[in-house]
Amino acid sequence: MNYSDFVIFIMEMMGTVAFAASGAMLGIRKKMDLFGVCVLGVTTAVGGGAIRDLILGITPPGMFRRPVYTFVAIVTSVGLFVLLYIKRNLLDGRIGHLYELLMNISDAIGLGIFTVVGINTAWSAGYHTLFLVVFVGVLTGVGGGLLRDVMAQEKPYILTKHIYACASIIGALVCVYTEDALGNLPAMMVGACAVVIVRFLAMHYRWNLPRIN
Amino acid sequence: MNYSDFVIFIMEMMGTVAFAASGAMLGIRKKMDLFGVCVLGVTTAVGGGAIRDLILGITPPGMFRRPVYTFVAIVTSVGLFVLLYIKRNLLDGRIGHLYELLMNISDAIGLGIFTVVGINTAWSAGYHTLFLVVFVGVLTGVGGGLLRDVMAQEKPYILTKHIYACASIIGALVCVYTEDALGNLPAMMVGACAVVIVRFLAMHYRWNLPRIN
Amino acid sequence: MNYSDFVIFIMEMMGTVAFAASGAMLGIRKKMDLFGVCVLGVTTAVGGGAIRDLILGITPPGMFRRPVYTFVAIVTSVGLFVLLYIKRNLLDGRIGHLYELLMNISDAIGLGIFTVVGINTAWSAGYHTLFLVVFVGVLTGVGGGLLRDVMAQEKPYILTKHIYACASIIGALVCVYTEDALGNLPAMMVGACAVVIVRFLAMHYRWNLPRIN
Repeated sequence: MNYSDFVIFIMEMMGTVAFAASGAMLGIRKKMDLFGVCVLGVTTAVGGGAIRDLILGITPPGMFRRPVYTFVAIVTSVGLFVLLYIKRNLLDGRIGHLYELLMNISDAIGLGIFTVVGINTAWSAGYHTLFLVVFVGVLTGVGGGLLRDVMAQEKPYILTKHIYACASIIGALVCVYTEDALGNLPAMMVGACAVVIVRFLAMHYRWNLPRIN
Repeated sequence: MNYSDFVIFIMEMMGTVAFAASGAMLGIRKKMDLFGVCVLGVTTAVGGGAIRDLILGITPPGMFRRPVYTFVAIVTSVGLFVLLYIKRNLLDGRIGHLYELLMNISDAIGLGIFTVVGINTAWSAGYHTLFLVVFVGVLTGVGGGLLRDVMAQEKPYILTKHIYACASIIGALVCVYTEDALGNLPAMMVGACAVVIVRFLAMHYRWNLPRIN
Repeated sequence: MNYSDFVIFIMEMMGTVAFAASGAMLGIRKKMDLFGVCVLGVTTAVGGGAIRDLILGITPPGMFRRPVYTFVAIVTSVGLFVLLYIKRNLLDGRIGHLYELLMNISDAIGLGIFTVVGINTAWSAGYHTLFLVVFVGVLTGVGGGLLRDVMAQEKPYILTKHIYACASIIGALVCVYTEDALGNLPAMMVGACAVVIVRFLAMHYRWNLPRIN
């Protein structure tokens, strides 16, 4: 594993932990048992990558060939479960606020990292059309969270949260357009940061697109 | 692009507009913001084709290689959103009636066109077994609407509407069985019309299959 | 078709009947019409296998090439519908109890059989990594029921039922680890039985994993 692969692997692990945490948090809030919490954590963490690989014709998807993603997702989910089982009062009183914050942070990090990892996978598979690469990146980013929300019978983030898929698209474009100038890895990092920053700004300033009431 | 490809392309565009409109209408009724409305419109319009291509082993699916479908779906969704944003009173008072009607018409047209387009894609990929061709056609037809309903947390049309998947199956059979006599393109048009007619008859006369109360 | 293929085919048919019954029962409870009941029965019965084949890169999935699975699922769904339509009082009074029992039994049998059939398909496709084989088996087992629950807007069994995916994993491991000693077919049967037994024990003794209240 060379330097570049290693950095991408670290990013994938961070994204896996972040998305597993967001899935596990939702499972805990929904009063699921330990196993349900793990299933939701794993699905959120590996779902986007599985969709991406199926779209690119990479079968079986990477998550089936390399257990490490699933393993890390399970460890994250169990860890979070145990922490909140022992320190139950962590969520007491301010459950809404703390939960919302944790969910949003971990989801934004997962969204940013998986978007650019998806783009990189498409590049590695030999695709370079702007549209295809961006679309695959966005689907990798939003896929895990979408499966999480559909399975847990929640309104999908992608349809309801301020500037959610929008942030992923912006970051994907930043990643693609800075690649020539910066090179592969730095472009991925800048792209992932762009997603997270746009999401945080949107949350903080409560940016909203118009809706019809 | 020869004549036949051109006609099929026009049909695909009509189906894309119709399904995008049905997705966007549902998003607007659910008070989603502009971006959520677009996401739902795009998913409905390209979802069936993506499922079809994955099933036939065509990766990446056509919708990822040709941006025009997504582009048309976005334009349709934004256009519908802007129209209803300005002319808000279009839906006032009679929201239930007009909404229901628009949804049903656009959904029936999308269902008809995508059913026969799915059959044609299976033919082009070299498959001619009756069962496979009809099944792929029906899944292409109902897939987009199913994703729309699951994402928007609605009862899937395919499970609840009078004669919904039934109409798609009937049209698919009409398309396959008239192909020998009529040729490719006319068979597709006859099949698509059959779907729309069966759906409209079922709606008008409130045809219902038995259920256990 | 040799002896081994024949036995596996019989197992697949049993799993198809069991899962179709579980889907049809849910459709009937949800007051769907005959066609909706069939759609849900077919989806539950063939969904897991379709997901498995897509993951393994077998396109089009077997269910599209061999109509027998769909046919058996439809016959099962219609049969169950007709039975409960005529003998409506079968469910009267004790609907909760009898329905729960039938659902759980047919779902457990389907889960057990499809788990080991999924493992066998992965073996036949040349995969022998423990993780991949078990993961594919579990997804084959739980996939149909997951699609059923998501389409019918029910809380997914996999997230809520005592020891559900757990039972599938245990059976998958039993199947893989006994294969060397017992050979292919007996290992599959032992694995499927293990799933059913664990599910029944979990139901009977109401085994529960911890949850955070």
